[in-house]
Amino acid sequence: MSGLTVGVLGASGYGGAGLIARLARHPEVERLALGSRRYAGQPVSACWPQFGGATAALAFQESDAVIAAADVLFCATPHGATAPLVAQALAAGKRVVDLSADFRLDPAAYREWYGAEHPHPELFERARYGLVELHRHELSGAQLIASPGCNATAGALALAPLAAAGLTGASVVVNVLTGVSGAGRSPGEAFTYAELDENAKAYKPSGTHRHTAEIEATGGRARAAAAAGDGKRLDSRAPFEPLPVSFTPHLVPMSRGILATLTTRVPDGADASEEGLLALLADYYAGDPLVTVQRELPQTKAAAGSDRAVLSARFDARTGHALVFCAIDNLGKGASGQAVQAFNVAHGFPETLGLAEVGTWP
Amino acid sequence: MSGLTVGVLGASGYGGAGLIARLARHPEVERLALGSRRYAGQPVSACWPQFGGATAALAFQESDAVIAAADVLFCATPHGATAPLVAQALAAGKRVVDLSADFRLDPAAYREWYGAEHPHPELFERARYGLVELHRHELSGAQLIASPGCNATAGALALAPLAAAGLTGASVVVNVLTGVSGAGRSPGEAFTYAELDENAKAYKPSGTHRHTAEIEATGGRARAAAAAGDGKRLDSRAPFEPLPVSFTPHLVPMSRGILATLTTRVPDGADASEEGLLALLADYYAGDPLVTVQRELPQTKAAAGSDRAVLSARFDARTGHALVFCAIDNLGKGASGQAVQAFNVAHGFPETLGLAEVGTWP
Amino acid sequence: MSGLTVGVLGASGYGGAGLIARLARHPEVERLALGSRRYAGQPVSACWPQFGGATAALAFQESDAVIAAADVLFCATPHGATAPLVAQALAAGKRVVDLSADFRLDPAAYREWYGAEHPHPELFERARYGLVELHRHELSGAQLIASPGCNATAGALALAPLAAAGLTGASVVVNVLTGVSGAGRSPGEAFTYAELDENAKAYKPSGTHRHTAEIEATGGRARAAAAAGDGKRLDSRAPFEPLPVSFTPHLVPMSRGILATLTTRVPDGADASEEGLLALLADYYAGDPLVTVQRELPQTKAAAGSDRAVLSARFDARTGHALVFCAIDNLGKGASGQAVQAFNVAHGFPETLGLAEVGTWP
Amino acid sequence: MSGLTVGVLGASGYGGAGLIARLARHPEVERLALGSRRYAGQPVSACWPQFGGATAALAFQESDAVIAAADVLFCATPHGATAPLVAQALAAGKRVVDLSADFRLDPAAYREWYGAEHPHPELFERARYGLVELHRHELSGAQLIASPGCNATAGALALAPLAAAGLTGASVVVNVLTGVSGAGRSPGEAFTYAELDENAKAYKPSGTHRHTAEIEATGGRARAAAAAGDGKRLDSRAPFEPLPVSFTPHLVPMSRGILATLTTRVPDGADASEEGLLALLADYYAGDPLVTVQRELPQTKAAAGSDRAVLSARFDARTGHALVFCAIDNLGKGASGQAVQAFNVAHGFPETLGLAEVGTWP
Repeated sequence: MSGLTVGVLGASGYGGAGLIARLARHPEVERLALGSRRYAGQPVSACWPQFGGATAALAFQESDAVIAAADVLFCATPHGATAPLVAQALAAGKRVVDLSADFRLDPAAYREWYGAEHPHPELFERARYGLVELHRHELSGAQLIASPGCNATAGALALAPLAAAGLTGASVVVNVLTGVSGAGRSPGEAFTYAELDENAKAYKPSGTHRHTAEIEATGGRARAAAAAGDGKRLDSRAPFEPLPVSFTPHLVPMSRGILATLTTRVPDGADASEEGLLALLADYYAGDPLVTVQRELPQTKAAAGSDRAVLSARFDARTGHALVFCAIDNLGKGASGQAVQAFNVAHGFPETLGLAEVGTWP
Repeated sequence: MSGLTVGVLGASGYGGAGLIARLARHPEVERLALGSRRYAGQPVSACWPQFGGATAALAFQESDAVIAAADVLFCATPHGATAPLVAQALAAGKRVVDLSADFRLDPAAYREWYGAEHPHPELFERARYGLVELHRHELSGAQLIASPGCNATAGALALAPLAAAGLTGASVVVNVLTGVSGAGRSPGEAFTYAELDENAKAYKPSGTHRHTAEIEATGGRARAAAAAGDGKRLDSRAPFEPLPVSFTPHLVPMSRGILATLTTRVPDGADASEEGLLALLADYYAGDPLVTVQRELPQTKAAAGSDRAVLSARFDARTGHALVFCAIDNLGKGASGQAVQAFNVAHGFPETLGLAEVGTWP
Repeated sequence: MSGLTVGVLGASGYGGAGLIARLARHPEVERLALGSRRYAGQPVSACWPQFGGATAALAFQESDAVIAAADVLFCATPHGATAPLVAQALAAGKRVVDLSADFRLDPAAYREWYGAEHPHPELFERARYGLVELHRHELSGAQLIASPGCNATAGALALAPLAAAGLTGASVVVNVLTGVSGAGRSPGEAFTYAELDENAKAYKPSGTHRHTAEIEATGGRARAAAAAGDGKRLDSRAPFEPLPVSFTPHLVPMSRGILATLTTRVPDGADASEEGLLALLADYYAGDPLVTVQRELPQTKAAAGSDRAVLSARFDARTGHALVFCAIDNLGKGASGQAVQAFNVAHGFPETLGLAEVGTWP
Repeated sequence: MSGLTVGVLGASGYGGAGLIARLARHPEVERLALGSRRYAGQPVSACWPQFGGATAALAFQESDAVIAAADVLFCATPHGATAPLVAQALAAGKRVVDLSADFRLDPAAYREWYGAEHPHPELFERARYGLVELHRHELSGAQLIASPGCNATAGALALAPLAAAGLTGASVVVNVLTGVSGAGRSPGEAFTYAELDENAKAYKPSGTHRHTAEIEATGGRARAAAAAGDGKRLDSRAPFEPLPVSFTPHLVPMSRGILATLTTRVPDGADASEEGLLALLADYYAGDPLVTVQRELPQTKAAAGSDRAVLSARFDARTGHALVFCAIDNLGKGASGQAVQAFNVAHGFPETLGLAEVGTWP
């Protein structure tokens, strides 16, 4: 027991719930401080029905109390509202794992995709992008970790090996199927059961979803790292050329899960095959405890409830298209699981401590 | 009342159930003869719980009796097993609407995609492809109608206008989300509720699903028709060059519905925009009673239970990608609705007679 | 074509959508006037995605305009807010079919269950309870029809035959499973897909749901009618003794559908058996076109999308319990279907005109 | 690390998968031996997609090898086929936790409910009923544990406190809503997604489901234990009088979860109230780490993925009905979780070791 007190802001959202579950069983975490403006003063059970025992009885607090108590702070608060809380915590010397979008893009890209000046551009030099498999070397001891978006995680894990291998063509299509919980706990009337059950639709198509920028950045950095002989040691801060993608998410009737299907016609003359693509993925993610590369096409439910990513690939020799598939739980590897994974790396703990390695099947 | 007796083979499958529902209320159909080997001699209610009254009491028969009784025969029987039944019915002078795959591809393409010689190549000259919006002029009086595959319907309706307008690039990606009923009523253990609920996965990816051939054929024919100044009057029999696509279906947890998302980087220099694409679709499908072109992105549930197709489009100027979306009910416009629509055209009845024009919402 | 103009208030709710679908295809309805405060001036397509063609283009209006235009008015507006609209329409000489709860209970029962004085007690003498199978004789020419609650419909159809036959014991338990659409289109954050998917729970248990009063009233009236030798000709206005039930609804993850399971230990000495109960149901509902009595246990999906009720029964000789099951679509027979059925009877039209007789399977 | 080798027969079924997940992380279990006739020689990943790492690579074996290797054997095999395996393992001196139905009922009751003579009646004296909360005192050191049925667990936990307090009336109705996984992994064509989605139905109604016998036995034993002043120390072997119930399960569209709703009209003169019932439950289950008693009505999803039971109660003073609700995960507390809980008690390990205490929300 390290005696760590860990704070969670936004603990009444889905990201927060996943953090509570993982941190409550984490052997290096001694105390939890849970922040929620809406539920401050009330027990966890007033907000979340899935906890029993001592965890259900913990009381939510205001953010100032949480920040003051915490050795490490997780922010699962809305983008825009989070940067000032991060600044406050960093100023108080706390380590921060930020699940919001506020420190994922550099100030210029932030301006382009979020349509506003970043309120704390001076903090970016301390930020590291928390996609652990590709930035692990940067995360040890990191003070500010920007945990990736859920769609971005699945899309980037699919894209990076192809980008590194030079197998992306002039058009890279990343279509994602996503569960409803990605919209948060209070997403409004269009997200009721009766409206979404038995329903599938695209939303924020190609060029309009902000996770596009994260995918393109990771693609570009993976290409640059490979060119520089750095393998998958990506750099959060060096200049890079984004790798353009057409990214379109689709809402499908399930609570959890993301499936990314990346399709690209490989460059003329490229040497591609199903076996080659599978070997490429296996090599790229060798040693990553939360990534499974398999021949069978991934299904979201195999990852649901877990913090794993499952990948596979195919090659269509007839038309020259390479396809890479990646399934994650948007709330696991796509959110709280990945954030705790990065926290583990930052502290030098075993990478999967407190995480969920087995999905809930059925 | 025209006094038509209409036969349905495969009436104990989902395609058959949709045909019963539509034909039982069709004002030009006087009598139904329903075929099912498994349920022969038993009433409809032994197989289907959704019917009441007189329809529930109708008895299934063996196929010979159905063919003998019918003026018009719908075949909703498995591919491979259907061609001989079609031959038998045509020899007896009956009109046939075939929902199986047996007459959708010409003998050469059939050999390539189905891996076998076609058992009745001599019948192809009488077959017309039943995608009504694009082949309507051919269907009047047609003796043998090959009703399109469900995925092919959605994919082809999305692709044809782009192909006609020359807006498809070197890579055309057609990803489809499909409900589970597309696999039929007895699809095996991997299709149980507990295995598929909360689950999404790709299957038969790029180049391996047989509906690919239908989409590529329609794309090629639409391009040829436009080049010949024939608008959307496609020709089932003329030689053509297929338009290659990467087609990947995804199984998502819903009973009904298909959403096709077509993505292509338009040729360099092409003049494309959201407004232009929407106008292209609206022009292409002007006058088609079962096609709705709208700005809002389509959702499958809006078409579920109906025989409509709903389309929209977007253009990503940043990366040059055009996207076309098409939502249908795989069992409506994708199967029995489309077959009855073609039957109506063949007979000169109003095109939507007996069809379902309103979806079930919620 | 009778030339009727039919108005629908609350046309932007689920009840309203079902009315639009049924009335738009009703051969005796010439024009629709659709009321919605929220969408006034906008077309149907701004609110509902499931309509195409002319119906999608109809514009919503304010309620005054709808009432003025209508020969017959359907109210699918919230309880409490509806009574004044009913009064306004009746004063203008219009026939009213009210889907709200405002005229289902007499003023005394209304006070007990709704906790307020009824605003228009003087109108009750004109109201008839619109459970067509049991009140058909009263509905011909009725000026004000109070259409039953969805749970009440399923529960009352199950209870009435047992009550009439004297087979209810000291404890009558009516448990209902209900789909989510029963809560309306904007039911709040607890009704999102992510919260309700894979979830089942009881709510408003025994004695706290207002539909209890309707079930008890129908049970009491059915008992009284049978005792008086009136069979199932129930009387909306005569004094009666309610038949007490423990009614508990359960929310289950589906959009549509209600399954009522009635369990009662029959009085000592009662002559009960499965065959007897099935015959009792079949006799009681003989001639009712929208009721199916069958040996197979009913399933909600067989009624979904339709206006049918499906009933069955069992007897547990070991413990003396009789069970009656009733499945309906809460938005069909439980709401708009039943309302149009009553409208047909009031006007002397065939009872199933415009209704949906076939469920959507699968 | 105790060095235990634990065997699991039936490891390719849902019960087996839950056992693998719990035992693989159990700190007192050193090695797993997994039995599956169908998958013998193949790795876990050939059968189950949700595991990664070392667990996915474990090979299934034939049952003889598993029994030989195991210190403790879990049987998740079909009823009827299990008793001989249990006999074999007991003869070899192994401890057995049997998740099948083979040792839940005494030989006489087994004959009545299963319609056959029990093949190993001589083993019953060694069997203890594994409903831990009520039989904990018997389970320490037990050699053969008969783990309860899933419906029986929920129904019995709801019934026992009422039975002990003398609050059950002449009719006790236990209605259960159950997820589809209760039918196992290969339940046949009626359990496909397309048939069950958006569907609810009763099955094996009152008096026909075999779990009835377990519920009635626990009710009777709880009554007897209370009368004898033994609180909730129930006796697996003493003669007892069953407490008759009408038990009817309902299949609802979810993969996991059981909600039991018990309704009984309390005896005349009984002193009952909501507060009293809640206090009764809280007292009865005080100290049970996996039981949560709460005022809020339980929902199945709060228990899904966990090994908790959540209970609440209500009293309808108007009609004299007491209601008790119990939600569990049928595969957690209803199957593998409960079996591991009993294993922990048998070995003197902490009761929740290896179990899942937090549900998966959403």
